Amino acid sequence: MKLTSIFLSFVLGMLFISCKSPKQDSDAIPNIVLIFADDMGYGDLASYGAIGYSTPNLDLLANEGMRFSNFYAAQPVCSASRASLMTGCYSNRVGIKYALGPNSEVGLNPEEETIAEILKRRDYKTMAIGKWHLGDNPKFLPQQQGFDDYLGLPYSNDMWPVDYDGNHKENSIYPELPLIKGSKPLRTIKTLEDQAELTNLYTEAAVDFINHNKDSAFFLYLAHSMPHVPIVASERFRGKSEQGMYGDVIMEIDWSVGEVVKALEKNGIRENTLIIFTSDNGPWLNFGNHAGSAGGLREGKLTSFEGGMRVPCIMNWPKEIPQGKVCNKLASTIDILPSLAKITNSPLPIKKIDGVDITPLLKGKDDVTPRKYLYYYFADNQLEAIRMERWKLVYPHDHLSYEDVLHGKEGYPGEYNHKSTGMKLFDLRSDPGERYNVIDSYPKVVDEIMKIADEAREDLGDSLTGNHGKNRRKPGHL
Amino acid sequence: MKLTSIFLSFVLGMLFISCKSPKQDSDAIPNIVLIFADDMGYGDLASYGAIGYSTPNLDLLANEGMRFSNFYAAQPVCSASRASLMTGCYSNRVGIKYALGPNSEVGLNPEEETIAEILKRRDYKTMAIGKWHLGDNPKFLPQQQGFDDYLGLPYSNDMWPVDYDGNHKENSIYPELPLIKGSKPLRTIKTLEDQAELTNLYTEAAVDFINHNKDSAFFLYLAHSMPHVPIVASERFRGKSEQGMYGDVIMEIDWSVGEVVKALEKNGIRENTLIIFTSDNGPWLNFGNHAGSAGGLREGKLTSFEGGMRVPCIMNWPKEIPQGKVCNKLASTIDILPSLAKITNSPLPIKKIDGVDITPLLKGKDDVTPRKYLYYYFADNQLEAIRMERWKLVYPHDHLSYEDVLHGKEGYPGEYNHKSTGMKLFDLRSDPGERYNVIDSYPKVVDEIMKIADEAREDLGDSLTGNHGKNRRKPGHL
Repeated sequence: MKLTSIFLSFVLGMLFISCKSPKQDSDAIPNIVLIFADDMGYGDLASYGAIGYSTPNLDLLANEGMRFSNFYAAQPVCSASRASLMTGCYSNRVGIKYALGPNSEVGLNPEEETIAEILKRRDYKTMAIGKWHLGDNPKFLPQQQGFDDYLGLPYSNDMWPVDYDGNHKENSIYPELPLIKGSKPLRTIKTLEDQAELTNLYTEAAVDFINHNKDSAFFLYLAHSMPHVPIVASERFRGKSEQGMYGDVIMEIDWSVGEVVKALEKNGIRENTLIIFTSDNGPWLNFGNHAGSAGGLREGKLTSFEGGMRVPCIMNWPKEIPQGKVCNKLASTIDILPSLAKITNSPLPIKKIDGVDITPLLKGKDDVTPRKYLYYYFADNQLEAIRMERWKLVYPHDHLSYEDVLHGKEGYPGEYNHKSTGMKLFDLRSDPGERYNVIDSYPKVVDEIMKIADEAREDLGDSLTGNHGKNRRKPGHL
Repeated sequence: MKLTSIFLSFVLGMLFISCKSPKQDSDAIPNIVLIFADDMGYGDLASYGAIGYSTPNLDLLANEGMRFSNFYAAQPVCSASRASLMTGCYSNRVGIKYALGPNSEVGLNPEEETIAEILKRRDYKTMAIGKWHLGDNPKFLPQQQGFDDYLGLPYSNDMWPVDYDGNHKENSIYPELPLIKGSKPLRTIKTLEDQAELTNLYTEAAVDFINHNKDSAFFLYLAHSMPHVPIVASERFRGKSEQGMYGDVIMEIDWSVGEVVKALEKNGIRENTLIIFTSDNGPWLNFGNHAGSAGGLREGKLTSFEGGMRVPCIMNWPKEIPQGKVCNKLASTIDILPSLAKITNSPLPIKKIDGVDITPLLKGKDDVTPRKYLYYYFADNQLEAIRMERWKLVYPHDHLSYEDVLHGKEGYPGEYNHKSTGMKLFDLRSDPGERYNVIDSYPKVVDEIMKIADEAREDLGDSLTGNHGKNRRKPGHL
């Protein structure tokens, strides 16, 4: 074949691909259900060793799908973590840090391309339900980021004028907590009893969305407000677990997962639906018995130790993912966007992203390593640690700690501790708990990781070393 | 029905049960394969999150069977742990402590009834393969404890006159390391290359035993010498894992499990064979990259922290155990004997034991709790901790520690650290890593556990408090 005819075939082929209407291949592109729990720790599901309550629906998803043991939120705090999930970028690349408050003047830049926008190009019906937390101004709400519809809380459920005892507070720094429908407030969440209905409310909306869109490809982003404090289960689930309220709340989330699966089955679309279940960061441990478990990992939310960033993750897609496999390869929430782009044959965002395509892992391949390293950024653009394969190099930094301090109880927080760490190397193969510094034993590993750190600093900056980073973008401003 | 006829029916019924020959109900009673790894930690299997190597055969057993997350060796050291496994007793009850050396003057008392003896009453064919470590004198070897045959090392593979560099040592405290067949030395394990063949040797013997006994009910106890140091994989497995020698060794054990499963399948007896895979204690962490992983749990072998005693455990029995369930209920190696007695309808040992029947868990029942508490005894009869449901009360004691000290590398050990702990209460639901002492928050829980401790001290003693214990039995003496 001559070069010109090769070129012609190529052009015709591309034309054919780009001309296929979404309906033509709606059998091929899967529905996507992305369920995101809030502050759920690595040890909080029965399939990850949780005790005192059961999670049968999530266990079944794990048994019949894939469970990840080395899966990471991209930051150990809410807004930053969600910005990463939505964009496939480290959150410092897109300029979102910490947790945004009510009436925030910044939000995720509408110019960033989100998972929803990527999927919209393939005519997916899209809906976000639950906690958003990427800007509460209408300019930043889900409908500006590729979602056809939205129902939920625009930020965390503890950003409200109610005290830990459940009583309304005078002179709170927080306004009333709005439940948003579309881009407008629908009503106000005023009491703990109102919060107790959130999981149920979100679940009903999710099932409705599935029922109404059974004939199209759809993307459902279901971001539970629970088990973020204040934790409250609905009346039906209160007292269900041996563990107390935290267990009850997890059991209700598990029930919700079961309802979603039932709706998919009822509509005959279970087989080609990819369900992803994960969490935005580790447990908020100073809430004691109202917090989750990091499952033996060090520290929790608001730290870059493993307990803050390693999270449970289950992916289930009967049509494609083999049954009952545990994936121990490194992966992150930022890898979801490029993987969905690959699965749906959609183009990647035009601007640089950080996620990698992990679909080879979903096929059960053991001999591939899509992600070789991961940055642990936190706070004001601090590069606190880097993981490379089994190794984690921690850079000297100050950090909040849950150690050597009394945790809270029954909804009241304990104090925080503050600590500093020196430079440490952990071998997460033998030491996922980050207890044993082996930096003196593996100088070559340290050298190798330091080169990765240099690249990160040049690209994204590092406030610990004074690097600004040349490829950071700005958040949206009002 | 009159009382006399009830009595008559009962006598006739009992007569009928006891007259059934083993062959008559060989369909009903399962074969038992108990595989025991040495120093394998809680995090060492892929299904428990291991990285750097794969364990496909054990993953499959877990997927198609049950994986335990709260399963405990009864002591964090070899001989004591094995005495417990064999007798269903805390090892201090039967008088075995620490690790017995060569030419030991004590051993497991031949008057104790072992799993093998319990099963012999039901005419099981029985064989022990691998590490015994309950007395190396012929008086204490497996054939005195209900095993028809034995092939293996009578104690640990590092109790030999060879240095960490693999060179023969002059003036070693250890004699040559014998490989025993029956009750007699067969030959000597002289070099690391000899050690490299142990897993293969044991596996061949196991497969032979299965092939020869396919028509009877059998009990195979396969106690690997690996991954106890010195770790060596056979040539075929060296370099197989990304992780290095430790990963290679685990992959070879996994291969061995696969060979056993294949032999069962080939003989058509897989369906009614109960396979149990677990470990004698946690990882020996001061061997660094030649040690396993406690999977985030605190400390390792030789301590009563979770890393020393919580071990991986997989049970697989296609005929009875549901597929793919994770059991998060408390259970221990001491529960294996009474559970096997229940399964085979055999009488329990005449003397008091400590294990409980956990067969309801094997049926997948979530609403039962066969074991409510567990004692953590170690060293010279020290009651170091007690677990009650999700709680663990640690009593003040001195302990070896792997923290704040440099671990070894490439087969050479590091130093040990020595620490003391005060009285602590850990909530293992939210804190399986034993980092956060909550003793001041839960005084009632502490009171309740203290009552259990009083019972333990009266029954078994406690050298920390000076209690002698009224129900301890003596080990065997030469």
